[in-house]
Amino acid sequence: MVGVLGATGAVGQRMIALLDGHPRFELGDVVASAKRVGQAYGEAVAWRLPGGAPAGAAGLLLRDLSEGPLEGLTTYFSALDSSVAGEAEEAFAAAGCAVVSNSRNHRMDPDVPLLVPEVNSEHLEAIGRQRQRRAGPGFIVTNPNCSVVHVAMALAPLDRAFGVERVHVATLQAASGAGYPGVSAWDLIDNVIPFIGGGEEEKIETEPRKILGRHDAAGFAASPMQISAQVHRVPVIDGHLAALSITLKERATLAQVHDALSGFRGPAALRGLPSAPEPPIHVLPEPDRPQPRLDRDRGNGMAVSVGRIRPCPIGDVRLVALSHNTIRGAAGAAILNAELLDAEGWLP
Amino acid sequence: MVGVLGATGAVGQRMIALLDGHPRFELGDVVASAKRVGQAYGEAVAWRLPGGAPAGAAGLLLRDLSEGPLEGLTTYFSALDSSVAGEAEEAFAAAGCAVVSNSRNHRMDPDVPLLVPEVNSEHLEAIGRQRQRRAGPGFIVTNPNCSVVHVAMALAPLDRAFGVERVHVATLQAASGAGYPGVSAWDLIDNVIPFIGGGEEEKIETEPRKILGRHDAAGFAASPMQISAQVHRVPVIDGHLAALSITLKERATLAQVHDALSGFRGPAALRGLPSAPEPPIHVLPEPDRPQPRLDRDRGNGMAVSVGRIRPCPIGDVRLVALSHNTIRGAAGAAILNAELLDAEGWLP
Amino acid sequence: MVGVLGATGAVGQRMIALLDGHPRFELGDVVASAKRVGQAYGEAVAWRLPGGAPAGAAGLLLRDLSEGPLEGLTTYFSALDSSVAGEAEEAFAAAGCAVVSNSRNHRMDPDVPLLVPEVNSEHLEAIGRQRQRRAGPGFIVTNPNCSVVHVAMALAPLDRAFGVERVHVATLQAASGAGYPGVSAWDLIDNVIPFIGGGEEEKIETEPRKILGRHDAAGFAASPMQISAQVHRVPVIDGHLAALSITLKERATLAQVHDALSGFRGPAALRGLPSAPEPPIHVLPEPDRPQPRLDRDRGNGMAVSVGRIRPCPIGDVRLVALSHNTIRGAAGAAILNAELLDAEGWLP
Amino acid sequence: MVGVLGATGAVGQRMIALLDGHPRFELGDVVASAKRVGQAYGEAVAWRLPGGAPAGAAGLLLRDLSEGPLEGLTTYFSALDSSVAGEAEEAFAAAGCAVVSNSRNHRMDPDVPLLVPEVNSEHLEAIGRQRQRRAGPGFIVTNPNCSVVHVAMALAPLDRAFGVERVHVATLQAASGAGYPGVSAWDLIDNVIPFIGGGEEEKIETEPRKILGRHDAAGFAASPMQISAQVHRVPVIDGHLAALSITLKERATLAQVHDALSGFRGPAALRGLPSAPEPPIHVLPEPDRPQPRLDRDRGNGMAVSVGRIRPCPIGDVRLVALSHNTIRGAAGAAILNAELLDAEGWLP
Repeated sequence: MVGVLGATGAVGQRMIALLDGHPRFELGDVVASAKRVGQAYGEAVAWRLPGGAPAGAAGLLLRDLSEGPLEGLTTYFSALDSSVAGEAEEAFAAAGCAVVSNSRNHRMDPDVPLLVPEVNSEHLEAIGRQRQRRAGPGFIVTNPNCSVVHVAMALAPLDRAFGVERVHVATLQAASGAGYPGVSAWDLIDNVIPFIGGGEEEKIETEPRKILGRHDAAGFAASPMQISAQVHRVPVIDGHLAALSITLKERATLAQVHDALSGFRGPAALRGLPSAPEPPIHVLPEPDRPQPRLDRDRGNGMAVSVGRIRPCPIGDVRLVALSHNTIRGAAGAAILNAELLDAEGWLP
Repeated sequence: MVGVLGATGAVGQRMIALLDGHPRFELGDVVASAKRVGQAYGEAVAWRLPGGAPAGAAGLLLRDLSEGPLEGLTTYFSALDSSVAGEAEEAFAAAGCAVVSNSRNHRMDPDVPLLVPEVNSEHLEAIGRQRQRRAGPGFIVTNPNCSVVHVAMALAPLDRAFGVERVHVATLQAASGAGYPGVSAWDLIDNVIPFIGGGEEEKIETEPRKILGRHDAAGFAASPMQISAQVHRVPVIDGHLAALSITLKERATLAQVHDALSGFRGPAALRGLPSAPEPPIHVLPEPDRPQPRLDRDRGNGMAVSVGRIRPCPIGDVRLVALSHNTIRGAAGAAILNAELLDAEGWLP
Repeated sequence: MVGVLGATGAVGQRMIALLDGHPRFELGDVVASAKRVGQAYGEAVAWRLPGGAPAGAAGLLLRDLSEGPLEGLTTYFSALDSSVAGEAEEAFAAAGCAVVSNSRNHRMDPDVPLLVPEVNSEHLEAIGRQRQRRAGPGFIVTNPNCSVVHVAMALAPLDRAFGVERVHVATLQAASGAGYPGVSAWDLIDNVIPFIGGGEEEKIETEPRKILGRHDAAGFAASPMQISAQVHRVPVIDGHLAALSITLKERATLAQVHDALSGFRGPAALRGLPSAPEPPIHVLPEPDRPQPRLDRDRGNGMAVSVGRIRPCPIGDVRLVALSHNTIRGAAGAAILNAELLDAEGWLP
Repeated sequence: MVGVLGATGAVGQRMIALLDGHPRFELGDVVASAKRVGQAYGEAVAWRLPGGAPAGAAGLLLRDLSEGPLEGLTTYFSALDSSVAGEAEEAFAAAGCAVVSNSRNHRMDPDVPLLVPEVNSEHLEAIGRQRQRRAGPGFIVTNPNCSVVHVAMALAPLDRAFGVERVHVATLQAASGAGYPGVSAWDLIDNVIPFIGGGEEEKIETEPRKILGRHDAAGFAASPMQISAQVHRVPVIDGHLAALSITLKERATLAQVHDALSGFRGPAALRGLPSAPEPPIHVLPEPDRPQPRLDRDRGNGMAVSVGRIRPCPIGDVRLVALSHNTIRGAAGAAILNAELLDAEGWLP
């Protein structure tokens, strides 16, 4: 039995959709900080995903965040807004829960893993330091920002094989990344916006360095790679795209880059997990791919698509990477994180 | 009296719209290589711009490209498709005409100016070498690709003041840049395409270097700056946006960069020309501008908008530049070029 | 000198844009019920129209609605939200002002004209009854809902010539009709919504009947025509389209219908008014017009476009009508109303 | 083993996607009239659906339409363009094949069923008359136009229960309905088009009358109901929406209308067929549904969604109906037709 914090928001809805029929996690609690607490979830939520809210979730009564974890429930997904996630997630962890969070608040904490299971599962060892700090079984594990996961996934195999020194990133991000109601239609019809609030560019410039960095008893050591990000909101419903120009430490042919990406696999512990995409990276040969609408659902929305691998007149290699921002970039990422935590015996 | 080659296409239509009521150029000839030659322009054209075709143009009979210039007409705008522009423009120049072209075919020719009047009006001296070669008064002058003009305009003041060494460019380009019918709606609804055919990235990597290079009796010498471009088609009707990360030769503060851009002015010869924007660059202070729909029409679609001037973790400065791709980036650019040619006495 | 109530909203911004450089009305007051009262308009407003706020307006200090009219100003445009328009407009009228309103609150009042100048300028006589009621010079004049004006304009010449008995209307309405932020981009990308709140269908079913009805000393008598409306929000920025199936009282050929529409003219008093479109109705012959993006700006956004005139298997005639919803359907309508009031000597 | 005629087009691709893994029909032949005949399907097709072409189909060699049916294959789906479908389908039927067609050519033929399995499965008896005419086992069965199926499905239960006399239909139709490349992005960004070529309105006015009519030994007798249709193309990728105003023969309360729609079931023979939606009609209670993006995939894209059931000021009842135009409206309709033909023993 698991619970969802922030269950009525855009990411919370996606979590509940993905948990419907999940073979290992049964939804037993829906929590929010909104006004509609006390109502049945199906009535309280303004469901924005295709179809309607799953029947199993619809009947649960929405509880208030301040009530803390439900008796007997020790695993909570968090899709809380960053205005409340900081304290609330800490409170649930202090109460002994595993908090598997999509929120940004604790991502850069010195003992909180910023987990991409295919890339840095060894960072989970930081949970031990959290447990010491809290003197209890609870902990927080986070997944990266929705505009970061495909950047980190595409860089990981190249960093391992050749070393990544510098990366210029330009993103084209979907409307769903802003939550609901998020961006006004008035601003996105026949338009793009070269700006995303909440420090989006800073996240892309810092989170991959933690993900691709090392972790040992002394804590996390960020990768020294340099990243420059320029972000744009575009009239797409789902799917964040990033164009990368990468300078490597060691020379690599395009064929070597291609092979590193298409041959990339996560650790053995991921095999057979319900949400783990196999392979994690789809390398597309067509000259005009990946495209959000055509490629966001690869691997049930959990795979990263990479294309347009070609030389760069300034750096070494250019490519385009894409992931589904509310699945691989948010709700699905948290669920895969929890599946790995479960498989490795971390869940309380 | 002037004529338009390729009068029925997307850029040709925009030329004809802009020439309607123009104080110096009266439209007297419409030419195409299409099937509908011999019909009245108003019937032959599938007009795609708001309203309808101007009455003055609608009554002109569409002539065939192979017939050459109309008796007595010596100035032709060219919006020809690149499949026919190469030979046809040369033929019109050989016949003594000034050909003011938006087509790509002759842009990189060693004696053809690739003109941005605010930036490199001194390149017009190359016309003398053309006239020698052809032993006649005719010549070709070109304007850059629609995705290049705002890049070149934004770089020009920075290159003059501080020297530009390297530029990473990521573009978000409008559907009208592909002509009509161009991109299928099927491909652009809820989608972006990280690719534009016809060597779009190569144009962005080479054309600004000619524009910002020197010209003397020996010919053109391209600027040594390095440019890396990644292009994307987005669901916007008009307005190409480019995000730039720039490495300068000399250090500059953001205030100096801001001042160089907002203080930029073209040569005195441009003052008072009907299509010359004043100022040529609008520097926008808002954190989320420029945006295509809100800023493409600044200066009647002839001004370039620049915003988000900020430091770069890798290069020196980042900014976003925008122009109206079928006005400043195509039809309007050609008309401004012709206005300068007229003012400086180059027109036959 | 005139003022604008609700100056920061979507329609208020459009009013201020249209008043910039207006030959008869100079903007002297900007009023709102928002938090930013006391700031300069240019800082207080989140300007959503292309370019930026007009310089003349930008420097005015935003005043609070509760302060009432500015000393010496007796003409106010109202773009107030309906939650406050009812009382505020009444208060300004009671204070002696002409209130030229776009808000819905007083449209159906028994002594308030619901004015479409080309159609029912004689309804202005109702102002006399208002003045009696208030024992003062102030009054309220309204324009119809943005989805009504092109329906009423298209029906008017047919009702005069042949009598209109029944009308089925289906609308496709632009995002700007919902104000800002209005509809979420999440709801309109790759989607349409078959619903518009605030009684949109009821307005289409009742307002044209008042507009096309009679007015005499006893008050307004609504036209007995029956109207059934079905509304849809579509991903268009500006321009409301309506498909009509009309049953007439007298038989009419399609040619007669065409002539009635294209020959329609407003009263002589409209000639030469700055915002009066001439002709008021553009009848388009192409089989696929009018279209919002191509036709909304006809007559500077003040003309109504009609096309696809053809027989109906159930009623007598079908056609499609379009107008620019924030110009002809809102801000421009109010300004044209004020121009007529001015020309006819009604303004205090 | 089945084949697909017109396998590379938009509907053909959808058929091949739906046949991938189908429990009863294995794809064994792909046929086209295009240039790429002889190539492997995976190379010949410009696949426009998410992901890529199914592996099973990708390896089949594309055959030319003129070669006729493959030895041993007697069931063909047809997604042929109407320019070639007429003769080709007749030829395949004459060769002894069951041709299950989405093309319009034979829909109104006097012995060809226009089949909506939930509505008029008894029309299959007309196959007997076809077999007599051809003196062979082959026959043609068609499904309605993509803008017709949800209209016919929504009218069927009301016609049975109360009789339908008159229907006004206004449609908002998706871009995919025009095939690929179909409509230009230039025409659909920030725009709608109040016109669809190929007689779309006539199809909506005639096909439901055949579907809802009777069939006996003398042939088909169309329903006498009157239908008036006004069509619009909107910037939606998939999902056709229709707003209906219906005049009934007998009075019915809204509750009765609701019950007739939600209680509607197809014949027993449909139970358990792989593509048969259960229930066929989803009646949605929310005031703003159905919406294309949220509801088109109900019942795996095979269910019709109906909402906004409310009275009409002119007719008796208004409602909005939606279906997925390339699944329920085209490829999926043909496959369900074939499943019923198979279940009832009609396939050769």
